[in-house]
Amino acid sequence: MHPLEPALPVLDANHANLHKISCRGTLLTLAMWTVSAAAFAAAAAISFAPLSGKQIGGSAQPQNPAEQISFQRARNIILFIGDGMGDSEITAARYYSVGASGRLAMDTLPFTGAYTTWSVEEDAPSRPHYVPDSAATGTAWATGSKTSNGRISTSPATDRELKTILEYAREYGYRTGNVTTAELTDATPAVLAAHVSHRSCMGPADMRRCPADRKAAGGPGSIAEQLVDHQVDVLLGGGAERFAQKADSGISVESSARSNGYVVVHGRSELDSISRGRVLGLFAAGNMTTEWTGQRAAPFPSNVASPQSCRPQSRPSSEPTLAEMTAAALRLLEPSNSASAGFFLQVEGASIDKQDHAADPCGQIGETVAFDRAVRLGLDFAATHRDTLLIVTADHGHSSQIVETPSALEHPAGLMSTLRTREGSLLTLSYGTAVGQAAQGHTGTQVRIAARGPFASGVLGVIDQTDLFHLLLRSMRAPAQTSASLR
Amino acid sequence: MHPLEPALPVLDANHANLHKISCRGTLLTLAMWTVSAAAFAAAAAISFAPLSGKQIGGSAQPQNPAEQISFQRARNIILFIGDGMGDSEITAARYYSVGASGRLAMDTLPFTGAYTTWSVEEDAPSRPHYVPDSAATGTAWATGSKTSNGRISTSPATDRELKTILEYAREYGYRTGNVTTAELTDATPAVLAAHVSHRSCMGPADMRRCPADRKAAGGPGSIAEQLVDHQVDVLLGGGAERFAQKADSGISVESSARSNGYVVVHGRSELDSISRGRVLGLFAAGNMTTEWTGQRAAPFPSNVASPQSCRPQSRPSSEPTLAEMTAAALRLLEPSNSASAGFFLQVEGASIDKQDHAADPCGQIGETVAFDRAVRLGLDFAATHRDTLLIVTADHGHSSQIVETPSALEHPAGLMSTLRTREGSLLTLSYGTAVGQAAQGHTGTQVRIAARGPFASGVLGVIDQTDLFHLLLRSMRAPAQTSASLR
Repeated sequence: MHPLEPALPVLDANHANLHKISCRGTLLTLAMWTVSAAAFAAAAAISFAPLSGKQIGGSAQPQNPAEQISFQRARNIILFIGDGMGDSEITAARYYSVGASGRLAMDTLPFTGAYTTWSVEEDAPSRPHYVPDSAATGTAWATGSKTSNGRISTSPATDRELKTILEYAREYGYRTGNVTTAELTDATPAVLAAHVSHRSCMGPADMRRCPADRKAAGGPGSIAEQLVDHQVDVLLGGGAERFAQKADSGISVESSARSNGYVVVHGRSELDSISRGRVLGLFAAGNMTTEWTGQRAAPFPSNVASPQSCRPQSRPSSEPTLAEMTAAALRLLEPSNSASAGFFLQVEGASIDKQDHAADPCGQIGETVAFDRAVRLGLDFAATHRDTLLIVTADHGHSSQIVETPSALEHPAGLMSTLRTREGSLLTLSYGTAVGQAAQGHTGTQVRIAARGPFASGVLGVIDQTDLFHLLLRSMRAPAQTSASLR
Repeated sequence: MHPLEPALPVLDANHANLHKISCRGTLLTLAMWTVSAAAFAAAAAISFAPLSGKQIGGSAQPQNPAEQISFQRARNIILFIGDGMGDSEITAARYYSVGASGRLAMDTLPFTGAYTTWSVEEDAPSRPHYVPDSAATGTAWATGSKTSNGRISTSPATDRELKTILEYAREYGYRTGNVTTAELTDATPAVLAAHVSHRSCMGPADMRRCPADRKAAGGPGSIAEQLVDHQVDVLLGGGAERFAQKADSGISVESSARSNGYVVVHGRSELDSISRGRVLGLFAAGNMTTEWTGQRAAPFPSNVASPQSCRPQSRPSSEPTLAEMTAAALRLLEPSNSASAGFFLQVEGASIDKQDHAADPCGQIGETVAFDRAVRLGLDFAATHRDTLLIVTADHGHSSQIVETPSALEHPAGLMSTLRTREGSLLTLSYGTAVGQAAQGHTGTQVRIAARGPFASGVLGVIDQTDLFHLLLRSMRAPAQTSASLR
């Protein structure tokens, strides 16, 4: 029996017919691939039935997307960043978890396009650097300006602070949230509410590469200090060790947070008990635990002769899932009535990237599925709060590729692993961007961006990562909708 | 001096500003990256200035894509297939040819999405095969049905003929065209107007794997025979040797074509002289010559110490470019007045795939750029024939990845080559899906689909390759627009 699914799905004998059925009645057919979340104690409440997607095939009438185009003010904004989640990573997660004809929640967004992710050279900022990191890409979408790899919302060469979309959001009266499965001080959450010259400067004891940013030197401090000083309303993720570090004042960042009005929590049950206020949730010393586990990729013949199935990871009970953190953030940030402020929330699936670096296909797919479960919660929220702009994108492409089942004569040059999917087919992932023990590398490909809600149609075509900042800013500045159409 | 560009572009010292300018006045700024076509004698008439793309950044007002949504009948349909043109291949071609902020013609289409490309197992057609070939993917978009790798518009296991979109187009009164840089009997052009059990059965002498398809056995004959028997109005590409083969009747396929009313041409000048009628253009014995050339990728250290620039290929003067064949096809198929029939035209950039298989970055990028030049001609046609549905997509993903510049400690596991782009940056492509002398392999990732014109909004989101067939069919069956809006 498949370890992630009590009952293996049974496919229709005639796949062509199945496809036709799936076009006409997606929910009905795809329910066969539904992933039971029961295996995940932590996510037991989260069903994984794919949402109804595009229904273009067969005899279905075309939907007119014009009905979903809106340019009114976005009252709530939810930005989902799948770190390193290129099209290969999305496809692999879909095929493994819901089958080739299945659809992830993120697949169902009505507007879709691609954006470019290049960074620039630190010593020659007029010149593009085609393979970016999460710090430079984060700075691009968070500030609208390109920077060099490693920088957190500061300019290349000149080290100026670049104003972030979260800083604008606060100015415009939005409440703010920042959620991640990595350390809260990691690049993606950092770019929204910190300005340092290098991403490694996460806590007060980590300032070796950012001497001018130290508070003692008149700077804004480490990333952890700045996240708290920015008074982001909801901060949920890992990285407790960074916040335990003592600042130049001799007080830990966590203590400073409490003094500044934060409720600090370290476990899931504590998080559940909070209903309002400013919250700092630190659920792991470093990065949070991944949701799935399995064998890492290896050189040929790897596990080709005995394809693996992914297994649920044994996670500390105190660690919420990304979906649970997202649900908590939405609960804490949700406007209490039509007159209260809306919110800007960023949710990062950080370990898609980290498991891709580690050439761990089950880790990577499991994190993509976990991210998609969070997206689904966001879509459920948006369905009842229609003035919500919801965006799902990645920061850069990554290493994994879906390749033909390897043979002695024809196989990838690097690492590989073969998985048997729940629909009974073989799925081989190849990781060939590094050799030896080196981490697999990012790629420079354009990546998917998808959206729904006000200004969502702005993601169509090919845009640049910096355009996402402008889109978000414009959605905050637009005229509000009439109160009659408010929920 | 860059061999493909008489004058190297000079970039603004402040790249952030440059980007902003490019958002507000794309044509002005991007003109700096304009590729002079002068180096290509064959393409001298084709300028390469990027089209004005999405203008979302900066202060530009948002465009409302609702204005471009239409569900009236597509009078003309142009389907561009970039074989193996995944997002990595598009990104590499863009960065190399027009720079990171530049835009290809294919980037400017208003509606964009992704589609899945999986095929099925021949001996278990209910089971997906996640890494497809061009025969199965072509069958999917051409017939709306999944099949197994290697099949040409026939069903898996049962070997039934599957009706193609070109066959429907003829029924609905459309004139038809099929253009490729490969042999005309190669998989992508074949799926539109042939039904055989294996793609290798290209000419009457190649029928080893399709005994039941021989005419002598009561079958429809080889792919070459069927293309002619289908009376496709315009057939332009390579593969003259297949058409020189004698059929079971003792007569060559080319002779049969002449008997069936085809004008057969073998050179560019002959093609130019034809203004109307049924045309079979065979411009190479096998595949046509690529447009660019350079060093193939190699194991580390490859050419990392001396990055290459791509060079124009010396092509036989009798071979038209893909853009020239596209221009000829549009000229031959263009409706002469508002009462005459419209057309369905497929244009394949075939050697993007073939050069990706060969791990030849200049070949691959040059073919992508050549394909994009053909797309631009299609867009120019559509701009003055607004009832034209124009689609640009790929059939499957491929091997190449854009990776960090290799070093002794960190480099890809397979083959690699570093290029210096015209904006002065280093672009390294990695090919790691095969080892030794084996051809690089396809990948199973979802790929981009982009469209403009009637029914173009149907490509939004995540669809399946078979949905493209339904979209095309629906665009042919829809009510025609009023004569007042006809050009």
